[in-house]
Amino acid sequence: MDAKDKVDVVNRYIAAMDAADIEVIRSLYADNATLEDPAGADPVIGLAAVTQFYEEAFKAGVKLVATGKPRCAGNAVVFPFRAELPDRKFEIIDLFEFNAAGKIFAMKAYWGPENMLG
Amino acid sequence: MDAKDKVDVVNRYIAAMDAADIEVIRSLYADNATLEDPAGADPVIGLAAVTQFYEEAFKAGVKLVATGKPRCAGNAVVFPFRAELPDRKFEIIDLFEFNAAGKIFAMKAYWGPENMLG
Repeated sequence: MDAKDKVDVVNRYIAAMDAADIEVIRSLYADNATLEDPAGADPVIGLAAVTQFYEEAFKAGVKLVATGKPRCAGNAVVFPFRAELPDRKFEIIDLFEFNAAGKIFAMKAYWGPENMLG
Repeated sequence: MDAKDKVDVVNRYIAAMDAADIEVIRSLYADNATLEDPAGADPVIGLAAVTQFYEEAFKAGVKLVATGKPRCAGNAVVFPFRAELPDRKFEIIDLFEFNAAGKIFAMKAYWGPENMLG
């Protein structure tokens, strides 16, 4: 999977978050994907649970604004962004790791309370 | 290890890179540390090899400029920066994972050719 394809996934992900398009989000993840948000938290395991996680995020009204260029290396991409909720904003860096089929099999969102902007 | 301590390590790391202070860099890493630069490359393994890696970086004249706030989560911190060499610059995101003693045991630098600024 080359860098162009990884960046394309990031762009589709951010657009799908904006559009609350759960089918696009689901299509980016592997069946056995895990998700930690924040990194180190109990993982969300499996595509059904991951999908439910995003449905809840959509209900909360979250939108993402890229704040820097994705960095691709190995089987992964990391990218910095601002997550905007109706009442607060956070600065986050997501890590996506891809399997051989080009699907995200591990997602970790790096952020903490000190990354809240208000 | 709380977020404040992790951010302190990032700040000391960037300052030590600026000062080419190998003793500070060495003090931040665990004896059994691994380093992948870029992530996915063959790892540099062990404190002696990690130290040598930085001595070579100092010879190349690399300086780091933070381009965003560190994000702390779990046992880790990630932070975006620009690496400036005499003839080119790169946009990078580093991931540090800490052991129970507060030392970096795994470092991964996320960047690729498309992150070269010139």
